[in-house]
Amino acid sequence: MNDRLLRACRRQPVDRTPVWMMRQAGRYMKEYREIRQKVSFLELCKNPDLAAEVSLQPYRVLEVDAVIFFSDILIPVEAMGVSVSLTDKGPEIATPIRTQEAVDTLRIPDPAGEIPFVGAILNRLRQEIQNAVPLIGFAGAPWTLASYMVEGGGSKNFAEIKTLAFRESRVLHNLLDTLASTVSAYLLFQIESGAQVIQLFDTWAGELNRRDYEEFALPYTRKIFEAIGHRVPGILYVNGCAAILESMANSGADVLSVDWRISLAEARRRVGDRVALQGNLDPCVLLGSKDRIVSRTSEILEEAGPVGHIMNLGHGILPSTPLENAKALIETAKSHRHSR
Amino acid sequence: MNDRLLRACRRQPVDRTPVWMMRQAGRYMKEYREIRQKVSFLELCKNPDLAAEVSLQPYRVLEVDAVIFFSDILIPVEAMGVSVSLTDKGPEIATPIRTQEAVDTLRIPDPAGEIPFVGAILNRLRQEIQNAVPLIGFAGAPWTLASYMVEGGGSKNFAEIKTLAFRESRVLHNLLDTLASTVSAYLLFQIESGAQVIQLFDTWAGELNRRDYEEFALPYTRKIFEAIGHRVPGILYVNGCAAILESMANSGADVLSVDWRISLAEARRRVGDRVALQGNLDPCVLLGSKDRIVSRTSEILEEAGPVGHIMNLGHGILPSTPLENAKALIETAKSHRHSR
Repeated sequence: MNDRLLRACRRQPVDRTPVWMMRQAGRYMKEYREIRQKVSFLELCKNPDLAAEVSLQPYRVLEVDAVIFFSDILIPVEAMGVSVSLTDKGPEIATPIRTQEAVDTLRIPDPAGEIPFVGAILNRLRQEIQNAVPLIGFAGAPWTLASYMVEGGGSKNFAEIKTLAFRESRVLHNLLDTLASTVSAYLLFQIESGAQVIQLFDTWAGELNRRDYEEFALPYTRKIFEAIGHRVPGILYVNGCAAILESMANSGADVLSVDWRISLAEARRRVGDRVALQGNLDPCVLLGSKDRIVSRTSEILEEAGPVGHIMNLGHGILPSTPLENAKALIETAKSHRHSR
Repeated sequence: MNDRLLRACRRQPVDRTPVWMMRQAGRYMKEYREIRQKVSFLELCKNPDLAAEVSLQPYRVLEVDAVIFFSDILIPVEAMGVSVSLTDKGPEIATPIRTQEAVDTLRIPDPAGEIPFVGAILNRLRQEIQNAVPLIGFAGAPWTLASYMVEGGGSKNFAEIKTLAFRESRVLHNLLDTLASTVSAYLLFQIESGAQVIQLFDTWAGELNRRDYEEFALPYTRKIFEAIGHRVPGILYVNGCAAILESMANSGADVLSVDWRISLAEARRRVGDRVALQGNLDPCVLLGSKDRIVSRTSEILEEAGPVGHIMNLGHGILPSTPLENAKALIETAKSHRHSR
């Protein structure tokens, strides 16, 4: 087995830095677009055959060092009893959750009974991959899931969830706690179903300053990593993490996935050797010239050093990315030899 | 004259910390909404009587320590020959600037001849204010203006301008340089017309990592502050500045206006005593409870200390803000006595 990713998560020596891309199964691949012409996004998430197929596409075409199963972070939210639409403009939640009464209607789903297709996708993938590379499971973190649930979809200012935070924080804490229980059970189910690494996406926690991060995001992230108990390595991603990186390092995650705004050298100085680092090419660099992609990728590999680094983007790959540019990133990472 | 703001910009002692709010003339005030029922946003920007009137509203109602003239950062862009629409959903530029040919069509406007209404608004305001408080002028910084011009409006990923940056950086540099010349002349015109402080909004420069900030934003910001040559104090604002704060301190600005994600105590540790600091209450705190507003405002005042601080928000005030909550911020700042 190519276990570079698992070894990098644990800060063990590797012959070269492993590489994969957030949202690597997606619209920038024609094989993915062909399947999406036949089914909606949500149908794809719930169809084990097709979801496994699109999960494997980047592994076959780009030969990345890990497979992440295809899904959406709002899948368990739907199973909590919330009506979710996944549109081309992003998720929509027609009836936002903004009161204690609304929080009280939420259920903590039993994943095996209510989200069985996720187990089926992971089982299928483990069979297909035959231990060639690790399989990554994932979930949204409570703050980020709550932001969709309270805002009713994507947001610019996060005004609704912050109104709740700053006016009725008890209601928000109850929602976050319910989400932490949901996500813990959901990730344990993914691990039982074959996930060998898990990544927790707290994408929107970078909207919080350290104090609010430590009140509204960190305790729930920590609860989830405690529930997982290092059964498999855990990765924590936050977009815009420059202000809260040290706090993230206290989450119990084995790996911090860093957006492109700070260098991994600086991230390493700030968090020390407690955690591995993942990232952090600006996804927009993949819209640039081949020279720029190669030089920036090489620089990140050097800044991060040979131990405890997983090469990745700083955010999900953009649908408009040319496939050959994604290939340039992967090939640069694979052929890189560290100067130290 | 209440010159607390000018003294704070220069890090001189003040009897109390001055306070104003970014976008303080705006939709959260009923007096503003009444005027906006009669004229469009762009008409308001170009009507000296009405623009001066809405500029003065927060000064009269909230008794803030400075007046900022009412305008939009895209006003000089329109004068460069770009067709700009200011809609309720944000600015729209029907023909984005993405090629050298498009950059070549841009003119550097003569502000006195082509944007005379801005001079008229500032003249009017100086007459009305009678030196009671300082008058703030402002402009968008080149990276931020270019982002609207290249994207064609607001953006989520800034993929178009970054494509230019990473594929045809020469074209983008030419655009940024033209913008720096435009903004320099525009701000000098504002100063001649009565502005006693200027603020440069590089709102979207926080999308860049330090290296790209230093290539695509900082040199042009610096060019503008050099042109101004400390005729009046200069403030530099970036939203999401945690990763680039030290670089911003090298811009020539007298004051760094910091978003809410890092504490002013940390900002001070990082930039030392070279610059004053402005900020940095999360605008969403003004949607919260009165207790939360008072405690958070007091904490920021204490973290920043009594010298070289201008109390403000970390981003513009939200239209949905209750007026009494804005008042609570202003009153807390005015009544605060530092513990050290």
